[in-house]
Amino acid sequence: MVIIMEKGVDEKQIEYVIERLDSLGFDVHRSTGVDHTLLGVIGNTSKIDVRDMQILPGVSDAYRISAPYKLVSREFKHSNTVIDIKGIKIGGPEAVIIAGPCSVESGEQTLVVAERVSAAGAKILRGGAFKPRSSPYSFQGLGEQGLKYLREAADKFNMLVVTEVMDKDQIPLVSEYTDIIQVGARNMQNFSFIKALGTVKKPIFLKRGISATIEEWLMSAEYILSGGNKDVILCERGIRTFETYTRNTLDISAIPVVKKLSHLPIFADPSHGTGLRDKVIPMARAAIAAGADGLMIEVHPEPEKALSDGAQSLYPDQFEELMDQIRVIAEVIGRKISNKAEKVR
Amino acid sequence: MVIIMEKGVDEKQIEYVIERLDSLGFDVHRSTGVDHTLLGVIGNTSKIDVRDMQILPGVSDAYRISAPYKLVSREFKHSNTVIDIKGIKIGGPEAVIIAGPCSVESGEQTLVVAERVSAAGAKILRGGAFKPRSSPYSFQGLGEQGLKYLREAADKFNMLVVTEVMDKDQIPLVSEYTDIIQVGARNMQNFSFIKALGTVKKPIFLKRGISATIEEWLMSAEYILSGGNKDVILCERGIRTFETYTRNTLDISAIPVVKKLSHLPIFADPSHGTGLRDKVIPMARAAIAAGADGLMIEVHPEPEKALSDGAQSLYPDQFEELMDQIRVIAEVIGRKISNKAEKVR
Amino acid sequence: MVIIMEKGVDEKQIEYVIERLDSLGFDVHRSTGVDHTLLGVIGNTSKIDVRDMQILPGVSDAYRISAPYKLVSREFKHSNTVIDIKGIKIGGPEAVIIAGPCSVESGEQTLVVAERVSAAGAKILRGGAFKPRSSPYSFQGLGEQGLKYLREAADKFNMLVVTEVMDKDQIPLVSEYTDIIQVGARNMQNFSFIKALGTVKKPIFLKRGISATIEEWLMSAEYILSGGNKDVILCERGIRTFETYTRNTLDISAIPVVKKLSHLPIFADPSHGTGLRDKVIPMARAAIAAGADGLMIEVHPEPEKALSDGAQSLYPDQFEELMDQIRVIAEVIGRKISNKAEKVR
Amino acid sequence: MVIIMEKGVDEKQIEYVIERLDSLGFDVHRSTGVDHTLLGVIGNTSKIDVRDMQILPGVSDAYRISAPYKLVSREFKHSNTVIDIKGIKIGGPEAVIIAGPCSVESGEQTLVVAERVSAAGAKILRGGAFKPRSSPYSFQGLGEQGLKYLREAADKFNMLVVTEVMDKDQIPLVSEYTDIIQVGARNMQNFSFIKALGTVKKPIFLKRGISATIEEWLMSAEYILSGGNKDVILCERGIRTFETYTRNTLDISAIPVVKKLSHLPIFADPSHGTGLRDKVIPMARAAIAAGADGLMIEVHPEPEKALSDGAQSLYPDQFEELMDQIRVIAEVIGRKISNKAEKVR
Repeated sequence: MVIIMEKGVDEKQIEYVIERLDSLGFDVHRSTGVDHTLLGVIGNTSKIDVRDMQILPGVSDAYRISAPYKLVSREFKHSNTVIDIKGIKIGGPEAVIIAGPCSVESGEQTLVVAERVSAAGAKILRGGAFKPRSSPYSFQGLGEQGLKYLREAADKFNMLVVTEVMDKDQIPLVSEYTDIIQVGARNMQNFSFIKALGTVKKPIFLKRGISATIEEWLMSAEYILSGGNKDVILCERGIRTFETYTRNTLDISAIPVVKKLSHLPIFADPSHGTGLRDKVIPMARAAIAAGADGLMIEVHPEPEKALSDGAQSLYPDQFEELMDQIRVIAEVIGRKISNKAEKVR
Repeated sequence: MVIIMEKGVDEKQIEYVIERLDSLGFDVHRSTGVDHTLLGVIGNTSKIDVRDMQILPGVSDAYRISAPYKLVSREFKHSNTVIDIKGIKIGGPEAVIIAGPCSVESGEQTLVVAERVSAAGAKILRGGAFKPRSSPYSFQGLGEQGLKYLREAADKFNMLVVTEVMDKDQIPLVSEYTDIIQVGARNMQNFSFIKALGTVKKPIFLKRGISATIEEWLMSAEYILSGGNKDVILCERGIRTFETYTRNTLDISAIPVVKKLSHLPIFADPSHGTGLRDKVIPMARAAIAAGADGLMIEVHPEPEKALSDGAQSLYPDQFEELMDQIRVIAEVIGRKISNKAEKVR
Repeated sequence: MVIIMEKGVDEKQIEYVIERLDSLGFDVHRSTGVDHTLLGVIGNTSKIDVRDMQILPGVSDAYRISAPYKLVSREFKHSNTVIDIKGIKIGGPEAVIIAGPCSVESGEQTLVVAERVSAAGAKILRGGAFKPRSSPYSFQGLGEQGLKYLREAADKFNMLVVTEVMDKDQIPLVSEYTDIIQVGARNMQNFSFIKALGTVKKPIFLKRGISATIEEWLMSAEYILSGGNKDVILCERGIRTFETYTRNTLDISAIPVVKKLSHLPIFADPSHGTGLRDKVIPMARAAIAAGADGLMIEVHPEPEKALSDGAQSLYPDQFEELMDQIRVIAEVIGRKISNKAEKVR
Repeated sequence: MVIIMEKGVDEKQIEYVIERLDSLGFDVHRSTGVDHTLLGVIGNTSKIDVRDMQILPGVSDAYRISAPYKLVSREFKHSNTVIDIKGIKIGGPEAVIIAGPCSVESGEQTLVVAERVSAAGAKILRGGAFKPRSSPYSFQGLGEQGLKYLREAADKFNMLVVTEVMDKDQIPLVSEYTDIIQVGARNMQNFSFIKALGTVKKPIFLKRGISATIEEWLMSAEYILSGGNKDVILCERGIRTFETYTRNTLDISAIPVVKKLSHLPIFADPSHGTGLRDKVIPMARAAIAAGADGLMIEVHPEPEKALSDGAQSLYPDQFEELMDQIRVIAEVIGRKISNKAEKVR
């Protein structure tokens, strides 16, 4: 941290700031410039609130020199984190595609989707069994029965499962069925929950909060890593902006930004990111072109009858066409996307 | 809900929409205008997603006629909700002032603040024992010991206690010590948690999420009321905007807006709303002038040594001065704020 | 400006940065800390783009120490700027109220409003003759005829006139009729225009852009002052946020923030700030409680028939009631608002 | 427009609304539903302010059925607008690349950039001669001399010129040198200026305002088309969000949204959109993958010495590599990007 004292500051004010930092256990490097005295604070300043320094008498401003996160940073670990789950490698040269319905609605629906998306090259099956809904009157998911349908469908087509957990009490139950635990955007700063995920033995799929900065998002990942769980996958899923035509604004630039700041894999979810089926396809292409390590895409056999988010779910045929397009785009930047599967049934 | 069909829509498309609504259990009132056919959907449409209608073939647009919330609305209950806690009435003619430190740091600190703020007219003592922090390396609160300090100080000066609960597991423990359960901004859409609060026998102090619309906030209150707990106090605490000089932007206009839409009491928290001590005072005055039912204000005996949020905490003397000012302002709009207490010790 | 070099930076990279600054005419104060080398840049750095420094090899970050504005800052001029126009003092102890219709629609309408608002204590008459409208098909104002109506009505009731100018070509014409030139929010960063206002001999009423930071707003005022015109009045008129219930979100905290950063008078416009008549009154009270130097309020004799912004215009009776309320509030913070006028006609 | 009356509304209130609409020249289609009476307003309602209807007594809400723009809409004109300038077709099957320095700094700099970017396949040369700067103390451009350098360089390498005009007075001068007139983001709602562009005989390159919705942007284009100039190219250049790591957030989803709503060509500017050189390349790829009709990219021979925006300018070698990548991506969606030119000098 660097603290800049006001022009013409009183020597006593400088001493007060130094004493205050000393009492907090920091060394201070003092530098007297022509106009301003600068104080360089030495040590791990991540636990000091910058605002507490800015408000001290005689202080003009204070800035952090280092990022407030550590374990998630590329400075701390240079090489990409690659998470290997039953042989599927996330964060490696192959971009991995997650697909499936918004909500698990029935065993049949889940099987149909799993068959189609795995045939097209998706490796991971998604589907919500516990649904966070802004209205208490909306469909809240099938619960454990939904988890069973998901696991069965995934096993039949040799896929992994990712599904959302809504609080720490659900972790044990959901862990019996899923390979990856998804944290929804609204829970990104539910600190009790993400702290608990630090001791879980499953990879975490951490969605970005709807108005979170990238730094806040990485700080939430830091909670998980600092608890001991190193397997975090980040997922950009759209931020809130003034544009109302789309449901959210998918921040494609977050992909290269995260790639530079962190070693963790970064995915994009164009379904929630746009909320509109015909925008999912161009945005999925854009995310791969920008370097995403994977995509999460909602697919439904009959979107117009979906119990949630039908408006943003692709038809299976559209998903297949999209996969063909992104295979070519991935190669442009030296990535790969898995081929269509041989017919299974 | 009103559904507007496109100009020149196919009769079959109209029929498809009507069938779809019928299968969901709704009656439809069809009206054929010069340019557009309108479909009025009759019944409780709060469980339909507007976007699912907008995406049907031939549909131009769809709008909700009624608000998606019901129990919290002033339409549903005309008179103001007044919550009586041990004789202190929240939402009545008297604006009620909550004050205290950001975090409970010690028994002594809590006692000193409680004495000063109660003397100045505050009726409720605030203080955090479990702190939601964006960094895992920041001070996380004293836990149960903090709750004890808070209760002791409040009892000594005849005050109520409000303190934050971070997840549903903490509810039983914190309920032993507090009179009011605070839900932090980042938990406003933690649906597992707020659903659990619907069956709790304590009033809930529900802060607005940092980028939540007023409608989303009221929907979260609806979760609590629909679970059976009618005692919800709303608190505007600043929204995220592009302005960086203040920590957040306190949305003063939310006060009259909520007053019109809902019967629930509405408070303001100018401490988190601005993040800067010298802005707390004018914004506290503004909130009272706009009709707030009360304020939550951070006060610390030595803000420059606070373990959290010192930058936004008032000195006890400043708090006293503020109380004198808002007493006059409250009267302008026919409200009252309690007088200074007689010396207690 | 302070430039912080990366940990373990190459000596050549440090030298390159110093040379670069030297070639731009700056002296550099170098300070070698334990972890980081800091470079203090001496001189007027307002013409350097911080990002150009941040991108140089070996640079970790760069920060401005001083604000990018100078003439508008309270550091530069400690005492409040008081603008005296025909004996009416803006920025002094008395808060000055501007009122009138959104658009000038007729001579009669303007006279009726002027009579009522001046009787209630307003000192300045507002009204648009050239209207910036987001649709080319909306009413665009009466033009010069509107200016005439405005001047006549103001003269009859001994008021000043403020009206909007939309580009630099209109300055000479409008100057014949108005006492104060208003710059609309959408023109706050129309640099050709605001540069031209620097040489005008009329006070400028500069509205904040809809998504402008306070710093950007002050920079626009700096353009005007640096051109030679010292008489700028700032006006907060609502910023764009995610809340849709109100038209904009009136940033009341901008009032104390501007008061601290600048010596210029700061007004608030709760009419545009909320867009809703019944929210104008509480927000006007809030602005005065927060320390505004004045208000701009839309009043219309028959708002429901207004050609623009009827939804946010007060009835004359409401305006009168509001004036009575804010007179009391102003006194709480040692301000004054002028009394009701003696009947004139 | 559809107006929804409140439940249990008074018959007189309905009649008042109908009379009001009648006096404004509209026919009304009345439909009495079970709960609500709906009024369908027939005619061109683009000049009515929705808020004026919402505020009438007894009205629950009011919605526009049709978009407020007409000439720019795809409903009005189904086929894509293709603008042919000296044989270069904008909006056709070929995506057209604009490149050049942020500011024209010298004849030599401009020539060097033009040679390199045209060799790589760029067809249009960009460069600022009049620069809108947020500080009055920043470099404001070379003026007419800059225009001359730009024209000479473009002519030498057989390119078109696009450059920014800052107000209507500059139109005649700049028109002598440029092929396309650029309107900057801060001028998107400078209505005097964009109205004047409706009668100009040059295509207009209209950047999206920093916090403008797509609808507001299209309304500004509507101003130009309604004045008679049909040749408008839209350019997404990043919107303001809470993310501070990037300068702005390039809204890639605006590309498919505009393509659906309008027949006008849509470009993207990843240089301003991100503000960071190493983010320009992935975002340029993303824009092409999402279906952009072209890109505007800043290239500088020595970005670290640029007088403006050096931090976001590509080195010529980077630009060449980018062109190779987007050629492949364009083909995925059936588009083309022109090949490298034969060496010219």
